[in-house]
Amino acid sequence: MAVILASASAIRRTLLEQAGVVLSCRPAAVDEAEVRRRHQGHPGRSAAGVALVLAEMKARRVAVDHPGAAVIGADQMLECGDRWFDKPGSVAEAREQLRTLRGRSHVLSSAVVVVRDGTVLWHRTEQARLTMRSFSEGFLEDYLAAAGAEICRSVGGYHIEGRGLQLFERVEGDYFAILGLPLLPLLETLRQLGELKI
Amino acid sequence: MAVILASASAIRRTLLEQAGVVLSCRPAAVDEAEVRRRHQGHPGRSAAGVALVLAEMKARRVAVDHPGAAVIGADQMLECGDRWFDKPGSVAEAREQLRTLRGRSHVLSSAVVVVRDGTVLWHRTEQARLTMRSFSEGFLEDYLAAAGAEICRSVGGYHIEGRGLQLFERVEGDYFAILGLPLLPLLETLRQLGELKI
Repeated sequence: MAVILASASAIRRTLLEQAGVVLSCRPAAVDEAEVRRRHQGHPGRSAAGVALVLAEMKARRVAVDHPGAAVIGADQMLECGDRWFDKPGSVAEAREQLRTLRGRSHVLSSAVVVVRDGTVLWHRTEQARLTMRSFSEGFLEDYLAAAGAEICRSVGGYHIEGRGLQLFERVEGDYFAILGLPLLPLLETLRQLGELKI
Repeated sequence: MAVILASASAIRRTLLEQAGVVLSCRPAAVDEAEVRRRHQGHPGRSAAGVALVLAEMKARRVAVDHPGAAVIGADQMLECGDRWFDKPGSVAEAREQLRTLRGRSHVLSSAVVVVRDGTVLWHRTEQARLTMRSFSEGFLEDYLAAAGAEICRSVGGYHIEGRGLQLFERVEGDYFAILGLPLLPLLETLRQLGELKI
């Protein structure tokens, strides 16, 4: 059997590989921004719910081409007040996002889904609450300069696994879910599916 | 000014460097096992208290030779029931520790201290509760074989930042404190001391 991560996220791959999971990566071609826009503002559509929809879409898309494999799909949604955040399209947009998040709390919803042959075998969502400190403009510019275009790969424009941690004053919730996926329950699922040693 | 980590711990150094702290490392010559033995069993001596004593000892020892530097000392104590755990002296001892911890919860206390010129400027302790699953003997042997003698560098015989995560079913508490030091409050302290940009 095989485990496939339906994601181009370097941090998700690293998390799983560091924990000893042997896998391959097949990024799914899903227009995430379009799906988010379509759902935003609809009554009854929560950010966590949309993260789950996106995680499932990615896993299903990849599972079609890999019969029998356990395909992991994942997604994160960031909301602050009424606003949902996408990955910034440029460093300028990252700057705007970080200024908006500065000095406030936001909620990060992480969803993970395991699909095999068109069937969702398991799913999970986790929510974390993160509070950014009132960092100076000077700090922000240093941060953006050091991070460069890489910053555009992360929703909200921060890499909490790196120097981005200095943006925060408080982090509440599962750290793995904040980084990209709820790892402990996913490992338990992989054991139950026979993909990891008991 | 300068920041010095009074520790040989690779993970503590990595945590700080990843977060963008420029520092040098000067491991302190402290017989940790002896200090733990001396305190264990004394009424009123908690594991968290001993972690703090050790963190301060290490920082003070190094601060003597580095006037003006902000010296970070850190320590962790692991207790399960009445027993306090040391770093295992051998792979055989790591096996015994992991068998004892298997299927149970233990408490990991992390202490961090910042000393400058003989004065404790700040300190913090954090406690986390970790629950190991009932892993098989086969899993344990695979884990020990893969980890090798490296396992003897960690109290309790596990590397939760690596494959050791598969030993666990639940982790409650600050993940940075579990890895080696409460990072967010330490970063705030370094900002207040003028060692990091505000």
